Amino acid sequence: MVIVEAKLIALDWGSTRLRAFLLGDGGKVLATRQSNDGAATLHGAEAYARALGDLIGDWRADHPALQLLACGMVGSQYGWREAPYVRCPADAAALAGQVLRLDDALSIVPGLVDDAAQPDVMRGEETQIVGALALHPELAAEACLVLPGTHSKWARVSNGRVTGFATHMTGELFALLRQHSVLARLMPADGSSPAAPEAFLKGVDAAREDGGLAHQLFAVRTLGLFKQLAPEQLPDYLSGLLIGHEIASELRGAAPGRIALVGDPALCARYVQALTRFGQPAPLLLDNTAPAGLWRLAQTMKLI
Amino acid sequence: MVIVEAKLIALDWGSTRLRAFLLGDGGKVLATRQSNDGAATLHGAEAYARALGDLIGDWRADHPALQLLACGMVGSQYGWREAPYVRCPADAAALAGQVLRLDDALSIVPGLVDDAAQPDVMRGEETQIVGALALHPELAAEACLVLPGTHSKWARVSNGRVTGFATHMTGELFALLRQHSVLARLMPADGSSPAAPEAFLKGVDAAREDGGLAHQLFAVRTLGLFKQLAPEQLPDYLSGLLIGHEIASELRGAAPGRIALVGDPALCARYVQALTRFGQPAPLLLDNTAPAGLWRLAQTMKLI
Repeated sequence: MVIVEAKLIALDWGSTRLRAFLLGDGGKVLATRQSNDGAATLHGAEAYARALGDLIGDWRADHPALQLLACGMVGSQYGWREAPYVRCPADAAALAGQVLRLDDALSIVPGLVDDAAQPDVMRGEETQIVGALALHPELAAEACLVLPGTHSKWARVSNGRVTGFATHMTGELFALLRQHSVLARLMPADGSSPAAPEAFLKGVDAAREDGGLAHQLFAVRTLGLFKQLAPEQLPDYLSGLLIGHEIASELRGAAPGRIALVGDPALCARYVQALTRFGQPAPLLLDNTAPAGLWRLAQTMKLI
Repeated sequence: MVIVEAKLIALDWGSTRLRAFLLGDGGKVLATRQSNDGAATLHGAEAYARALGDLIGDWRADHPALQLLACGMVGSQYGWREAPYVRCPADAAALAGQVLRLDDALSIVPGLVDDAAQPDVMRGEETQIVGALALHPELAAEACLVLPGTHSKWARVSNGRVTGFATHMTGELFALLRQHSVLARLMPADGSSPAAPEAFLKGVDAAREDGGLAHQLFAVRTLGLFKQLAPEQLPDYLSGLLIGHEIASELRGAAPGRIALVGDPALCARYVQALTRFGQPAPLLLDNTAPAGLWRLAQTMKLI
């Protein structure tokens, strides 16, 4: 039997989920657990403490000396305690320097704010970015890190620092329109549609034309009404339209350079397809890099 | 006592409301009534017949020889009976020629389809446009008719014909985001906000910048988080952003020419403010022109 020593408990604590990672030497993931005790469901310090105990009380009992480092909405003003945003440009050292010590054992990574124009914020993604750069140091010189999701983030990295970023409410708009809008009426019930890659690409192509999102969305209805798309194709057309608009909007600015996609593989696969349609080279693909980011930040803080 | 003879019963029968107008000579409105028996709430011919009887059964009993002419979603494939769309370009004569005779007394005006690119449709607005041109013949030569609402329509008119149009889901997006999105959390409960014209214009100005709608929407959250806007200002900022994007998208194409706004005065007032911000001249303002449109179509059909 090989004894592997645990070095850090890393917590990726977002709005909807709490994910815990027991990390060993070099940030190796020894064990993972998750629960639905996301920050959006918890109110007050006791609720957070209880959620943590429920998920990994035994880890802490078994390893009483281990430090815990958390990122995500747990540090928002509606979270366990607020870890104020760090301003861009910022690197791992800037984030590590502003980590909030909640108690002797638990620290919370701050989010980032880009206030060059209207303020934009992230919480949790800054740690995923640190993780991506730790795993792929070649990205640090110049890259664009894209983190698709409910609120997609496009972050520009230069010389190891996040120089700026933009949020797109793509995933949330999809969910709202899929569930609550007039567009939903012609679609099958949620979850019952097989993948329709052609409809997805048709949506991406539409986004590359002029017209404005609020106008083009209406075509989801009319293409259904006129039977140019089958009901089960409409959700993918909508997805392509929204992801296409996100990409079109980002590509209108400065050339993004090397793109790395970080996140859920199925969702990232959609972005790969869409980016290809926009003539972009194949991006680098990374799964959840939060554990690697928390490990790197813990190193930078000399927590381990 | 002056006896005014009723000539036509005009029905503006949309998704959410049924509005009836008893019209006399020259299309003069003698009486109006409305109910919440919109097409979206009714299923089957009997339900429509009952809704009509409930609202104006006495009018029909008092004037048994009167014809009824209806426009709106009552003629959709999910309505009382489908009145197939007429293709653009189309004028009042083309619409009148395709009116659906439901029975001896009741006829339904068809909607319009613009299938130059992806199909776009309207039902009810075509009649409002006919009414606007009847009331303001000077618009017929060349104009842009804007009908703000849940699904705003921008219709180009040339030589008395609607040559094409575009729908923007502006009103529906506002309602979805106001009620169901992350943006709603920082806002006061629906309906409790006083008007915040400065926040509205700030939203319009944001829409004139680059960035994409799904990105700029997130600023509704961050401007609230960073207290750059008060909670009660956020709904108006959101409204300005959405209306601004609608206008920006339409102004990117061919110059709109003379703009006429048709619809709810309070909503049209927002469009006037926003159009002014875009440097457009003051538009013509018209309230509901459906009765005038139904009257003109009835004349064209020789129904009266």
